[in-house]
Amino acid sequence: MDKVDFTEKFALFSDRWSPKIVGEVNDAHVKIAKVQGAFVWHVHADEDEMFIIHRGRLTIRLRDRDVTLDPGQFFIVPRGVEHLPVAEEECEIIMLEPKTTLNTGDVVNERTVAEPEWI
Amino acid sequence: MDKVDFTEKFALFSDRWSPKIVGEVNDAHVKIAKVQGAFVWHVHADEDEMFIIHRGRLTIRLRDRDVTLDPGQFFIVPRGVEHLPVAEEECEIIMLEPKTTLNTGDVVNERTVAEPEWI
Repeated sequence: MDKVDFTEKFALFSDRWSPKIVGEVNDAHVKIAKVQGAFVWHVHADEDEMFIIHRGRLTIRLRDRDVTLDPGQFFIVPRGVEHLPVAEEECEIIMLEPKTTLNTGDVVNERTVAEPEWI
Repeated sequence: MDKVDFTEKFALFSDRWSPKIVGEVNDAHVKIAKVQGAFVWHVHADEDEMFIIHRGRLTIRLRDRDVTLDPGQFFIVPRGVEHLPVAEEECEIIMLEPKTTLNTGDVVNERTVAEPEWI
């Protein structure tokens, strides 16, 4: 593989809530996504999910609190914890999660991306 | 857990080549380290290792080429591939690797950190 530049990868697409794979490390994928608005409350029963902010601001709503993230910050949503990602303005996020992780977790709807593409 | 700010974490220490753990996601640790100079050629037989650059420039020497990384770029060293991290100036790096990964891989010397600390 070659090195990856996050800014270059984000320039390759404009669709939102549609994670793209940019790397594979052990049993995990490195994914990036552009997001804006509210996603959907969901949970990953057996998988922790790491969110790193590349640009913009993301709030991860949990049932008992909100976690607001700026660039250079990350948060790991532990398995079994319901969460709702929300971004007022467009935000660029990097995610690290097992290859088996479905973006909508236990929910399957029009936002589910069963097989994210590599870019 | 709470959110983590990389810059705040890097401000907590000054020793080099001594990875600190800042997160745990599935079977992996998120580690950070300050590095300068050349490390040691080593290999991780069964573990891929992801390097993300936070500040400065890191060159990862492989046996057949060099990969030079700037902030906002990453490279994944596949398992079984010998590598030598080198930084001319001090560089701040973020690593993602299995909890079982030893920083010096197949080599055990004075730079081996058997049990990195959480910060």
